[in-house]
Order: sequence, then structure tokens, then C-alpha cells
Amino acid sequence: MKFIHTSDWHIGRQLHNQSLLDDQRYVLQQIIEIAKEQDVDALIIAGDIYDRSVPPASAVALLDEVLNTLVNELKISVIMIAGNHDGHERLGFASRQMQDSGLHIIGPLSASLNPIELKGKQGNAMFYPLPYADPATVRHVFECEVSTHEEAMIKLLEQVTEHDAKELPKVVISHCFLDGGSESDSERPISIGGADKISPSLFSDYQYTALGHLHGPQYKGSEQIRYSGSPLKYSFSEQNQKKSVTLVEFDSTGKADISLLPLYGKRDVRIVEGLLSDILVAGQTDPNRDDYLMVRLLDKSAILDAMGKLRAVYPNVLHLERTGLMAQNQQLDIGKEHIKKGELDMFSDFFSQVYGESLTEKQHSAIVDTIDSLHKGEQA
Amino acid sequence: MKFIHTSDWHIGRQLHNQSLLDDQRYVLQQIIEIAKEQDVDALIIAGDIYDRSVPPASAVALLDEVLNTLVNELKISVIMIAGNHDGHERLGFASRQMQDSGLHIIGPLSASLNPIELKGKQGNAMFYPLPYADPATVRHVFECEVSTHEEAMIKLLEQVTEHDAKELPKVVISHCFLDGGSESDSERPISIGGADKISPSLFSDYQYTALGHLHGPQYKGSEQIRYSGSPLKYSFSEQNQKKSVTLVEFDSTGKADISLLPLYGKRDVRIVEGLLSDILVAGQTDPNRDDYLMVRLLDKSAILDAMGKLRAVYPNVLHLERTGLMAQNQQLDIGKEHIKKGELDMFSDFFSQVYGESLTEKQHSAIVDTIDSLHKGEQA
Repeated sequence: MKFIHTSDWHIGRQLHNQSLLDDQRYVLQQIIEIAKEQDVDALIIAGDIYDRSVPPASAVALLDEVLNTLVNELKISVIMIAGNHDGHERLGFASRQMQDSGLHIIGPLSASLNPIELKGKQGNAMFYPLPYADPATVRHVFECEVSTHEEAMIKLLEQVTEHDAKELPKVVISHCFLDGGSESDSERPISIGGADKISPSLFSDYQYTALGHLHGPQYKGSEQIRYSGSPLKYSFSEQNQKKSVTLVEFDSTGKADISLLPLYGKRDVRIVEGLLSDILVAGQTDPNRDDYLMVRLLDKSAILDAMGKLRAVYPNVLHLERTGLMAQNQQLDIGKEHIKKGELDMFSDFFSQVYGESLTEKQHSAIVDTIDSLHKGEQA
Repeated sequence: MKFIHTSDWHIGRQLHNQSLLDDQRYVLQQIIEIAKEQDVDALIIAGDIYDRSVPPASAVALLDEVLNTLVNELKISVIMIAGNHDGHERLGFASRQMQDSGLHIIGPLSASLNPIELKGKQGNAMFYPLPYADPATVRHVFECEVSTHEEAMIKLLEQVTEHDAKELPKVVISHCFLDGGSESDSERPISIGGADKISPSLFSDYQYTALGHLHGPQYKGSEQIRYSGSPLKYSFSEQNQKKSVTLVEFDSTGKADISLLPLYGKRDVRIVEGLLSDILVAGQTDPNRDDYLMVRLLDKSAILDAMGKLRAVYPNVLHLERTGLMAQNQQLDIGKEHIKKGELDMFSDFFSQVYGESLTEKQHSAIVDTIDSLHKGEQA
């Protein structure tokens, strides 16, 4: 059994109001090419297929196209689960009428486990797709008491562990946040301030765990408990990530042989920092002028239409930060903050900035007296 | 070949802000029962599956349930086309992965004809699903010149007529407005003030034409060119319609034997007219108090909380018209209208109402002179 693990396609997503549909089509085409070249048996998408529960019609049409190529033309089975961005009912519509075609879409969580045995050219494997489900949903579906994401996952995995896979390798597919995982700016928190982290050790008994949610490729606990990461950079915080799909192949003992196959965006997503004049000069000979850029201008003076000037050279500047001006503004802001404080606080801030130490008790009471007498003078 | 023709399910629709999902589940269950009892080979839904392009998730879940019963449990093939209410890309998602299951969803129009040969226990038939498409879409898909809905349909039917059905009966499925068809208040016009009507004669060569759009069951041109109508009353204008599905069976010569099988809503949709006191008394013994009602009160005096009083007896009064008060108000309005008109118009209106005929030319100039001299008197 040889399969590709990918996740977090977020089809229909925008980057600073720029549609990424062309970029998504481009990189999904690469995934199709890899699947073809590697002659894989299956492709697993571990959630966040779309960017939101009601994706634009163009995103639906793109996914339809990609699935048709994979499933109908290349005869590659596809298993996908709903992530925390997906609309579970919408994504799962008519999935029971698709499964014989080799397309397995798991939308809403159901109480009965849905193991999928896929045939491989070199042996079969048993897949356990677990769509994203918060503790409330698990409570409702299983009529049980769970309050954290970890307890909910323990509940879901009970069935997986009990299931007889007839000695086949077990592959769990899940969309969750493993404790210790590295976040990017483009993931939507699973829980705001809640207990959303799950211990990687829950998955240590399975031959492979295909995870979705975190956008940087990484593993936690052990090598076969793994996030594939998103196929594209969905925030500037990901500028240094190398995007890839994960190729997994089980050997005859059921051990997973894992490799990362790189993906190349049609346009890179990166940050450029410098003085406007330097950036404009460098841009003239930059072979990647179409990249999506965030520009941090270090100039300290006002610039007329900086965005217009930058876009004449880099047409896809999506965001501009006046880092130079901001430094000054931040100082101004601090000034304003100080005015709001009382005189005592202002003086002790000033004192500690100049002397590097706080007022002694004696100094403190001296300054309190001085301020008091000044106020009395005002009132007189 | 024996099949049910239905259309315009409009799942997710509301009636005066009242969700009809329970009513839709109830009547769709009846359709399933009929399909089972009649042991049909197929069920055809001629468009407007959902009420809008982005249906609520609960509507998606209901349709998923119904299709699972029909296709997976009862092994009845289902063909459905997008209507003018449906989102074509959304509805058509992954349809190529479903068709082997017996579920055929035709969302966007494509240039290649998509004939579906269905196997029947008593002979096969060839179905031609034509999703709703306006002239602009047909122009775009076929790169041809059509400007009216009729020209667009002629273009679509060319392929159907040319297709070799191997002597099987041809069934066209379409969502359109046939010239002479009777409308209800609940259809969304296909074109506002445009040329949206299609001659029924375009369909006269086919053994059956399963139409959707109009909500009352009816045929145009000949018996086998037919609207099934919606399964539920979606406006009070339909209070006297008898809802049904159309059962079609081809005999050995390919002639369609057609019958209407009635559907019964969980609650009827009807209009009650009378004095409040009479309605309240009658309501006490009304066995159908849960019906969805529009009440027309004939009382001419103000009534405190008429809706509250009515709902104590009829809990599902959805709309209240104060017909009695309105009649008075309309007279007032007419009075105001008259004041805006000139004296000449007012007099000729009055004259024709009293005498039942218009002013003669002589009378007309006499009154003009009179009004003129009156005005001169004013100015003097």
C-alpha cells in the first residue's frame, strides 16, 4: 500500500483579499502529477478541504475537477474527512452513493466506525477516517461524558483499537491539534482558550496517523504520527516553510516508509524588508516578481503612494508595513500613554529608564511630597 | 419502464418565515412509499431540488437521507437536474463519482449530451436530462447565437433528436416555462419581462417530457408533455391545487401510460375568510387546526391582537389580512388618487361610472369650457 497524505487544501481561500484559486489549481495539479508518477494506490486529505462551510461555487468546481482526474481517470482512491473549516453536512452529501467509485468523503461524525479497507498493488491497508468533532459533538453522537478534545479523541479511538484489521496496517485519519505542534498564522484555533490539545501518545499504536490542521509539515511523538501541512503558504508567517505532500509506503512488516515530496507554488509567499529605493532597484532584476509579497519599508519619512510604486515592480504586493514609521509612531503612542498616567508613575518610569533601577522608598516619598506641594500651589 | 416524475421539491423553503422542513420530510416519505408500493424503476426530479443555491445544511441532510433510502436501500435509480433555484456547481459536485450507484445529478449544462439508459423490469428507456440554462449559458457552452429561451431549448433538443435511442422510448427532463402554463405565486420568474416562454410543440416528438418549474400539475400541448407540480403547496395561491406525483409506465409500443398519485401534506395550506368571532367558533371544532392558514378578517372595526386571538385556536396562522379594513382604506386611497387628478379626468370618471359610457366629444368640450371659466373666475 502506497499513498499520499495531504491536508488543509482550504480551496477558495484568499490571502489578503487576493483569490488563490489559480495557485490552488496549479499546486493540486502537481499533487495529481506526483500521484501519477509515484503510482500510488490512494490519496488521503486530512480535513479543511474548503476554507469555509459554504465555499464559493468556483472552489466546488475545482475540487470536482481534481477528484474526477484522481478517481475516475487515474483510478486512485481518495479518502477525505471534514476539518474544522468544513461544513460537515454539505461536504458529506451523497457520500454513500460515491464510495463504490473509490471516493470516500466523511462529513459528519457517526456513532458507527467506518473502516475502509483499500486494496494496494503491494498489499492492503485499513483506514479509519475520523472527521473533526468537538467534545460537544462527541457527547451528542456517542451519548457519553467527554469535556476536552483529548477525552473526545480517546472515545473515538476506542473503536479503532478494538476493530479487527485482519493484520493489515491501521491508518488513522484525523484533524486535530497535537500537543507541542507548531502553529502558523493561518490556522483557525480549534478552541478559543479551551483545552484543544491532544497527546501524540494516543496514536502510538497505529502504523500511521495522517493528521490535518497545522499548516507546517511536522511529526509529533514519533515519525509516523504526522501532519502533512498545507500545499500552499496561507500566511506570511509560513514564508520559510517548505510545502510538501507526504508519501507513505508500508513494507511487508507493516512499517511505514515515509518521505516528503516538495510542492512549488505558482507564486511564492514571502516578506521583503528594506528601503523603498533599494527594493525598487532589486525588483528590476528579481526573477520572481510575481510572488505574493509583504513589504516592510524601513524608510522613516513619508512616501507618496508607496504601494503604487512597489506594485509597478512587484505587481502582487499584498500588504505593506511602514516599519520605519511604525517605530516612531510606537514611541509617540508611548508618549500619549504616559500623559494618561499620573505624575508619580511617569516620574518613576522616567527614573528607572535613566538610572536602570527603581525609586527607593525614600526617593518615592520625596517625590510624592513634591508633587503634592505642586498640586497645592495650583489650587491656591 | 415505470417511473415517478416529480419536481420542485424546494427543500429548505419557508412559508411566511415558517420552516417547512418537517412538512417536506413528511411528504418525501410519502413519495418513497409510493415508489416502493408501485415498484418503480426510477424517480425523476425535474429541477428546483433546493430552494436556493446555498441551501441550509439541514436541507442538504434531508435530501441525503431521502436519496440514500431510494438509491441504496430500494435500488431505485434517481435522475435529478438543476432548476433555476439551484446552484448548479454545488448540486453537481462529485456527480461523476455517483452515477454508478444509480444516482444521476446533472448540475451545470455541458456541451456533450448526457443520455442515461435506465434498465426497467419491463423494458428500458433513454433519459435526456437538460438542466436549467438561460440563453446566455447556452450561448457560452455551445458557442452559438441564441437569444430567447425557446431558441436555447431548440439548440439543446437538436442533440436529443439526433441521438440514437435504439428504439427505446425517449424521455426529456427539463426545467422551463411552457407557453400557456398556469403559474402560482411561488415560482420565481425565469426571466423578468423577458422572452422566457417555450412552445410545447418542441417536445412533441418524445415519448414523455418530465417538466419542472410550474407548481401546479398540468400538461401542455399533449398529455405526455407534463409538469408534475411541487409536492407541497408553497403559497396560498395553491390552496385549491391537488398535489401529486406523476406515475409513468411505457407499454410495449412505447406509449406512456400516465396517472397522478395524490400527496397529502402534513398540514394543509389554506385561506379562511370571515368575521373573527365566527372563525374562532368554527375553529373550536375544526379537525385541521394545525393547517397553515392565511386569515382574511372581514371585521370593519379595529381588533386588539387579532393574530394572538386567532393563534389561540389556529396555531399556524401565518398571515393575516384585514380585508374589511382594507376595503375602507382602499376607498380612501381612491379618494386621494382622485384629488391628484385634474377636474376634467375626475368628471369624466364620474360621468362614465354613473352613465356607463364615456363623454361624447360635445360633452367633453362643454365640460372643458365650464372648468376653464371656473378657473378664470378664481383668478379674477
